[in-house]
Order: sequence, then structure tokens, then C-alpha cells
Amino acid sequence: MKFICSKENLMEGINIVQKAVSSKTTMPILEGILLEAEDSFKLTGNDLEIGIECYVDADIKQTGSIVINSKMFGDIVRRLPESEILIEVKDNNIVVIECENSYFEVKGLPSSGFPSILEIEKEDAFKISQKLVRDMIKQTIFAVSVEESRPILTGSLIECKNNEISFVSIDGFRLALRKNKIESDHRDFNAVIPGKTLNEIVKILQSVDEEISIYISNNQVMFDMGRCRVVSRLLEGEYLNYRGIIPVDHETKIRVNTKELLLSIERASLISADEKRYPVKFSITDERMIISSSAEIGNSREELRVETTGKELEIGFNPRYFIEALRVIEDEFIEIYFTTSMGPCIIRPEKEDARYEYLVVPIRMKKD
Amino acid sequence: MKFICSKENLMEGINIVQKAVSSKTTMPILEGILLEAEDSFKLTGNDLEIGIECYVDADIKQTGSIVINSKMFGDIVRRLPESEILIEVKDNNIVVIECENSYFEVKGLPSSGFPSILEIEKEDAFKISQKLVRDMIKQTIFAVSVEESRPILTGSLIECKNNEISFVSIDGFRLALRKNKIESDHRDFNAVIPGKTLNEIVKILQSVDEEISIYISNNQVMFDMGRCRVVSRLLEGEYLNYRGIIPVDHETKIRVNTKELLLSIERASLISADEKRYPVKFSITDERMIISSSAEIGNSREELRVETTGKELEIGFNPRYFIEALRVIEDEFIEIYFTTSMGPCIIRPEKEDARYEYLVVPIRMKKD
Repeated sequence: MKFICSKENLMEGINIVQKAVSSKTTMPILEGILLEAEDSFKLTGNDLEIGIECYVDADIKQTGSIVINSKMFGDIVRRLPESEILIEVKDNNIVVIECENSYFEVKGLPSSGFPSILEIEKEDAFKISQKLVRDMIKQTIFAVSVEESRPILTGSLIECKNNEISFVSIDGFRLALRKNKIESDHRDFNAVIPGKTLNEIVKILQSVDEEISIYISNNQVMFDMGRCRVVSRLLEGEYLNYRGIIPVDHETKIRVNTKELLLSIERASLISADEKRYPVKFSITDERMIISSSAEIGNSREELRVETTGKELEIGFNPRYFIEALRVIEDEFIEIYFTTSMGPCIIRPEKEDARYEYLVVPIRMKKD
Repeated sequence: MKFICSKENLMEGINIVQKAVSSKTTMPILEGILLEAEDSFKLTGNDLEIGIECYVDADIKQTGSIVINSKMFGDIVRRLPESEILIEVKDNNIVVIECENSYFEVKGLPSSGFPSILEIEKEDAFKISQKLVRDMIKQTIFAVSVEESRPILTGSLIECKNNEISFVSIDGFRLALRKNKIESDHRDFNAVIPGKTLNEIVKILQSVDEEISIYISNNQVMFDMGRCRVVSRLLEGEYLNYRGIIPVDHETKIRVNTKELLLSIERASLISADEKRYPVKFSITDERMIISSSAEIGNSREELRVETTGKELEIGFNPRYFIEALRVIEDEFIEIYFTTSMGPCIIRPEKEDARYEYLVVPIRMKKD
């Protein structure tokens, strides 16, 4: 194998596929990146959970393939001058990296030992804007369960139904749901993608309108961005029927400035920071809301203007559950629909076409 | 105690004094900041090694003092709106923090238990520009010893002699010396300041020409920046007679571009990264220098143009010892004076008035 490519392009490719490279593994080959020069030049990382392949422009002088340690390769290329890099495999799997006055020889591994990414049938592409997928993942990923007791909840449900695409995460205390109308008439599908995979995908996706294709098979999903493809296994099993969880009625509704509420809860949470047993309390009256917290170190009180419809209410929450959702809502105002002081509440952006719903369960308050 | 001050000023003061607050201590009061409102308002942090006090503009309504947990206080003030903050101590050492619609009560501790910073006699000030002290510390601090076997070397020597001020660090493998002429006719002195203190001071000092005063007593040093003062204990004992260490003669001298040499050694060091036993090798001939490294994973070779005077030479170094020094030299070119392949070399910026000298001891190379 022998090819020449620019430092900039190569570095960009390495940065992307490194997201699928294991840093801790007992199999040295999984710490490597697969370089393949055939008709075109391709980099691949694969930790058996998630595989990423990325095409990089290169002038191929001789075809071939090799696996090179990902960290070493990335560190070397990152520090090379902004120039053309020559890469060549010599006898005994020695990889030569040459750039201006720098010359490296690094031991590689034969590509035959590298686990290939399973091909997924490229039929029935679901096309969607990159920015939209990115936003949908960002608005739901944080509510994925971190507990292994119900493995299916460690992933997000992606569902296509009635010309609508949805991402859903549930961890037992909250539910984040982001939906969007779709133009095309795609067949219905649903799949549960591991949270770990989504965390890597969201780092690769750009905030651009360009379309990507999503392919779903029985046990794999592929995000095809043209030059880069990410393949992940799916979680097995039936996801929760989330539709039944979202309450329809409410007894109290408030309209509040998103940013002001976020800052107030962030401040109140400082008092109860390390002490999960202390909730932040909302006391809602006609035109205002008092956000208070109390712990051994002290207490706090924040006053916010709100527009209230319905009953007055006192209710307590884990502040982190509010903070994480408020940080991903871009709308200036939200509406919060409360059922009772013991029941879940729903946060929705104020806009008519609200495509985001976030449900959170309260903490039972101690009587003073 | 009761006063009003701006969030901006208070935050600035907290950020400075927090550098002297212990994060891990068995004495809760040392995790606190002392607030004192008398004629003026002052914050103090003190971990018994280093004490920092800082005056902050405030409208004092009632004098008094209190100690408040530094992390909690900093976190709260950081998240308050950019506005005026009212701080008041109530019964039972409760500190009230009020700002717009936010109200906090945090348990404080009586100031009587806070270790006071020992007064240092403010006689015989040594005046010097802030930027200069900052540069002198930055160019020497990294060569302070981290081994406790010779405690005196865990600090830097500050010496005033013959109208020259010097900072010196030695760790047994290298020596960093930065000197500067001084205008005033100050009495001679020398003191050894702990590296830990210097690390904090360098973060506080600004790159401005404004003068600061340094006061030295038998066992303490004070850096007086006007609104802020840093007091540190000194290390006890005699410092090494470093003058005898620096060789006068050389057999080989090269002139090389500082940045190019730095980048080349950084790249070469990637190969031997985790393996301290592999040095980076310099092979110096008439007009060029080959920098090479070799380890189990592979090898590298860099070629640099240099101007050589004297003998050809092969010599090996711990790359980190070169990298750290080259990063703090701003001059475009340096000169390196080599004695033999077994003896120390000296790096000096090319300028005539070279005020920086860095000595480094080579690693004995294995014969190929």
C-alpha cells in the first residue's frame, strides 16, 4: 500500500473514525485503525459495538491495507506540518509516514485480523437532514437510562410512523420525546439504538441541512453521511409503550421564560448539590413561582414571574432532571403542565407546533 | 457585617483568593474564605503554605467578619446575575447573599478560628514589573524538583546580587536560570520560594508593566500587587551553588530555529512517549542535525538545518527536558553549546543580552 494525501484531510478522517476505536481492550487490533487503499482510500474504526468508516481523498500509488495503532497514528499526523503526507507499507507490516523533513516507521498489524463492519442492505433509505437528526438526538439522549437492569432503556427508540419520525428516551424518572413531520412516504419502522452509539454519532453530525440516509436492518442501523458511515448494533427487545405514559389532563399550567427558569434552578441546586435527597421545591401561585431549596449547609429562594392557569401547587423535583431538559430547549418560553403534586409534569416549548415533550416525575416532599 | 458590591468585582476577588484555599483538608475552616468588612472589604484564603488577601470595592453598611465555604460561595456568586450583591451576616453565623430575585442563606463559621496571615515587615520593598516576574517564573518553574529527597530543590531560588535579579530552578538533571538587570540599588538578598507557591502566583500575575513590590523576611516572602497580596513561607536551608555547575567551555555549538527544533523533538518524542528509557538522539554535522528516536513500536527521523561551529556530535536526551524549555523561549533562534556526548549542554537565546540559560544533562546512549 502506498498513497499521498493532505494532512488536513487525513486528520479529519482520523478524528472521526477514532470515535469507534477502543481505548481499553485486551485485543490490540481493536486499538487500531484499518487503512485500506483500493479504488479509493478508506479509514475504519470498530470496537464491535460501533463501526465507523470514512473515505479520505488520496492519490493511491499502490493498493493494499494495514492496521495501525490509532493513538500513535493520530498523535503523529496531528503534529506533522500542514503539507502532503506519504504513507507506505513496507515489509513486516512496517508503516512509513513521511512528511517534509519528518520520517516515521511504525509497526502495523495485518488487516486480516481486523473485524469487518457487517454490510447492511442499502435498500429503503430513510433520508433526513443532518441538523435535524443531531437536534433530535441532543434533545433526548440525556434521558437514556444508565442502569443495566432494563437494558432496552439504555437506548433511544427511533420510530417512523404516520409520516412522523420520533426519538424517545425513558429512564424511569423522565421521558424525552422529540418528533418531526416527514415529507416522504416511508414505510413504518422502529429500532432501539444504544445510547453509547448515539453519543458518538451526535459528535460526528454537523449542524447543516444536508441530507443523510438511515438504513435499518434486523439488528443494525447505519447512518450514511456520504463520505462517512456509522454502523451500530441495535438493542434487542420491545421498547416501552411510551404513549400511555404521557398524561393528557392537567390541573395547573404555567408559562415561563426558559432561560430564567434554568438559571434559577441551577442556582437553587447548588445548595443541594451533593445531597440527592434534597429536592428543589416549586411553589406556584397566580403570577409567580418560588423556587427554593434547603439542606444542612443552608437554603435558597428564587422568585420568578410566571403566567399560571389553574390551581396553585407545591411540588418538588430532582433539579438535574429539569436542568438537562431546559438546556436543550431553544424556545424563549415554555409551558409546564402539572397534574398533581405527586404526579408527573410535562414541559413543552410554547410554539403551536410543539415537537418536543419532556415528562418528569416529582420527588415526594417532606411535610415541614 | 453587611455590604453591597458588584458581582463582577466580588467574583474577581474570589477567583484570586481561592488559589490559596485547600480543597482537601481535615479542617473545615481552611476550606473557607475569610470575609472582613472594616474600613474596606477584604477576602482572604490561607492553606497555611500560602495566604492570599484581596481588597474588593464595596459599600460597607456594617463592619464585621465571617468565614464561608469557598466552593459554595464561589459557585453561588458565579451564577448570580451581573448586578449588585448584598451580603449580610445574621444570627448564628448565617450568611445571607441577595441579588435581584435570588436569596441564599449559607452557614458560615466564626472568623476567630481562621488562621491569620502573618504580618511581614513592609520595609525595603523590591520593586519590579509584574510582567517581568511572571516571565521569570514561567521560564524556570518547570525545572523545580518534584522529589522530596532534597527539599530545597522543590523551590526556586530568587536572588538579588550586583544589581541583577535571578530566578533559578534545578532538579538534578537540568538547571533553568533567568536573570535581569535592575535599575535601583537594592540590598542583596536570596530566598527559596516553594514551587507550589510560584505556580499559584504565576496564575495571579498579569502580563502588564505595572510594578509590584516583593518583601522578604527570614521565613516569608510577600508579593504585593496593591489590591492583592500573596504571602508564602520560604524553604529553609542553603541552595546549591549553581554558578559552579554551568560549564564555560564547549566543543560544539549550533544555531537553530527555536520553533522548528521544538516541533521536531515533540514529534520524535511520540515514538518514545511512555518509555522513558528511550532517549531522543541528536546527530549533529556541519549544516544539519538529525533528530531520531527508536522504540519497540517503531522509529522516527527528523532533519533540521542548523549552523554548526566545532566538532560533529552524537548525543541523547530525555525529550521532555528540551520541550519544556523550548516552549518558554520566545526568541526565534537559540544557540546550543555542547561539551561532550556525556556532558551537559546549555541552551541560550541568540540575542546578545541573553538573560536566559538552560542546562540539561544527556542520557548515555546505547552503542548500536
